[in-house]
Amino acid sequence: MDIFQVEGPLVCTRRIDGLQKVSLRLLRDANGKRQVATDPLGARAGNRVFTVNGSAARYAQGDYSVLTDLTIGGIIDGD
Amino acid sequence: MDIFQVEGPLVCTRRIDGLQKVSLRLLRDANGKRQVATDPLGARAGNRVFTVNGSAARYAQGDYSVLTDLTIGGIIDGD
Amino acid sequence: MDIFQVEGPLVCTRRIDGLQKVSLRLLRDANGKRQVATDPLGARAGNRVFTVNGSAARYAQGDYSVLTDLTIGGIIDGD
Amino acid sequence: MDIFQVEGPLVCTRRIDGLQKVSLRLLRDANGKRQVATDPLGARAGNRVFTVNGSAARYAQGDYSVLTDLTIGGIIDGD
Amino acid sequence: MDIFQVEGPLVCTRRIDGLQKVSLRLLRDANGKRQVATDPLGARAGNRVFTVNGSAARYAQGDYSVLTDLTIGGIIDGD
Repeated sequence: MDIFQVEGPLVCTRRIDGLQKVSLRLLRDANGKRQVATDPLGARAGNRVFTVNGSAARYAQGDYSVLTDLTIGGIIDGD
Repeated sequence: MDIFQVEGPLVCTRRIDGLQKVSLRLLRDANGKRQVATDPLGARAGNRVFTVNGSAARYAQGDYSVLTDLTIGGIIDGD
Repeated sequence: MDIFQVEGPLVCTRRIDGLQKVSLRLLRDANGKRQVATDPLGARAGNRVFTVNGSAARYAQGDYSVLTDLTIGGIIDGD
Repeated sequence: MDIFQVEGPLVCTRRIDGLQKVSLRLLRDANGKRQVATDPLGARAGNRVFTVNGSAARYAQGDYSVLTDLTIGGIIDGD
Repeated sequence: MDIFQVEGPLVCTRRIDGLQKVSLRLLRDANGKRQVATDPLGARAGNRVFTVNGSAARYAQGDYSVLTDLTIGGIIDGD
């Protein structure tokens, strides 16, 4: 499970039906690389989080029919 | 889910039957690395997109029998 | 299977239900990159370990319903 | 799906039964990193190709019992 | 499928039950990065090998219940 900092929501008008209405977050890793994750926890900008990838990401989102490959799995305490 | 900019269509006369007639797009990430994705959304050159990988990519394409490992999941607004 | 050194437990008050009550460990690879793994073996700070990723990680944790993508598979002897 | 140039066939006398008699190709990416793929299309040295990875690679090979994780999915035209 | 050189066996007294009694090998890639693989072929130190990853790794080991994500798929001839 990878570690990222949340930059904020991702605005994306056109997306596949399979992502339904789930919230998308823009994340940045320690090297500055950005990725997009679905968020079942309501993470906010600045939060440090870890993510679940692969087929587990869909179960982690709480609905296997959501077609994500990366889901926020936890918000890391303090720092 | 990774972030890319669309370079354009990929021309590829010989390909496996499992890709059927779906559109292929040539993508470039922030480091200049190129990948190929299937595109259910009609993204155009210059669009910033995010992609779904792994087994979810096949569902994201709308037809699980399409043998892709990377599908455009959304077109990112503005910039 | 990747090789890491254990930094210690990961403190994370808010996490998805799918991770249940399993122990999380903060790991660091040879390049300093950090990842988070579930730990069925009780690894301690300083231990060198290898990890199992993908769908096998969930079986490796001993309970397929745990939504991890990275599980400690063994503690490497000596050094 | 990743992009590679074909270097040629891979000679490998001892291999697992699960790879059966399929052709193996040695590939090189834009950074010079080499990988090995199964080839259902008959790609030749110098061809630029893209590959399908993960569980889709086995279906892409045309026989799910072939234990590959990387299959050539198409030969890219011109250049 | 990735290419590695075999460094030797991996000594690991404590490991998950899911790895059973299979042999583990320490591998090193062209950039010096190390990984651990299960070995159904009896590769020796110095051999160049390629590996199968993901769910195919478990079938490649010859027993799907072995919880590996990386299995040696072939020993590359000569050099």
